[in-house]
Amino acid sequence: MDWFFNTRVWQQMHGNPTGGETGVDNEIAEQGLAGLGTWILGRNIFGPVRGPWPDESWKGWWGDEPPYHTPVFVLTHHARPPLRMAGTEFRFVTGGIKAALQQAREAAGERDIRLGGGVATIRQYLGAGLIDELHLAVRPVLLGAGEALLAGMNLPALGYESFKHVAGERAMHVFLRKRD
Amino acid sequence: MDWFFNTRVWQQMHGNPTGGETGVDNEIAEQGLAGLGTWILGRNIFGPVRGPWPDESWKGWWGDEPPYHTPVFVLTHHARPPLRMAGTEFRFVTGGIKAALQQAREAAGERDIRLGGGVATIRQYLGAGLIDELHLAVRPVLLGAGEALLAGMNLPALGYESFKHVAGERAMHVFLRKRD
Repeated sequence: MDWFFNTRVWQQMHGNPTGGETGVDNEIAEQGLAGLGTWILGRNIFGPVRGPWPDESWKGWWGDEPPYHTPVFVLTHHARPPLRMAGTEFRFVTGGIKAALQQAREAAGERDIRLGGGVATIRQYLGAGLIDELHLAVRPVLLGAGEALLAGMNLPALGYESFKHVAGERAMHVFLRKRD
Repeated sequence: MDWFFNTRVWQQMHGNPTGGETGVDNEIAEQGLAGLGTWILGRNIFGPVRGPWPDESWKGWWGDEPPYHTPVFVLTHHARPPLRMAGTEFRFVTGGIKAALQQAREAAGERDIRLGGGVATIRQYLGAGLIDELHLAVRPVLLGAGEALLAGMNLPALGYESFKHVAGERAMHVFLRKRD
């Protein structure tokens, strides 16, 4: 994520209005955040708590003002009441990816829905052909092990094509979309 | 391979001295071909024949003058006498990757040895920690299925690091090397 952490956009989202760099990476980060009506997140993006929620004390990684400023639908197997924070409301969805998408569509109206990860969540939506456009920021870092985003995923068979790639300062940005 | 087929270097190698494009991709292609003393190829890069060689009629994909112009060691389970072509001699090695590397070292002297693929061959050498430097040309093309070059390969544990990446016209060039 180093390509993103160094952008002006990210720095502004985190209280540093003049920090960060402008350029291609920053422009692409900006475009990815424009026009959003809502987000969908896997539970592990929301937090490290596993299994049933022991209480409601975990309120995300982001402090009192999360950076979303929209409704955010969190996929989980364990019900929890909505969590209202400054500018952002987290709503917990136990009905699976299609239920979350349906609720997100209603909340977003004409605006876009952004899927904020993690890997398992993106693989589920992609495998179901429910992602219209996918932005991959390819940055060469050797992790050794981990989840493989596209392993075993036959993207052409799922109807996807790669329609654009742009060299940024720290990453290559690849855009996939579903063919009509 | 589209990034390579459009370079001046590749066009020159194939009898078109003024065709192709100059630029970053072309420079990187040139650097990768400079100072080579020999090549190692997996058998499927040499040709489509499987199992024992029925005869010696298959002489590679490249016509009478292959583009290597060095000795080329071809990994195979099936012995075959050396094949002399204009500027290139193919030598067939049945003793495995280490035997081929040893013979390639003797042939190359102070010059470099280039591993020309395919995927299974590179995975064998990489898994054995025998590659000093690896150039990956990352170009977004959705293939659907195929061999995965780095799947399940713990590169940091094998001693590799990513030390450079360069945006070319058609690909991002990533360079890995073995730490000292």
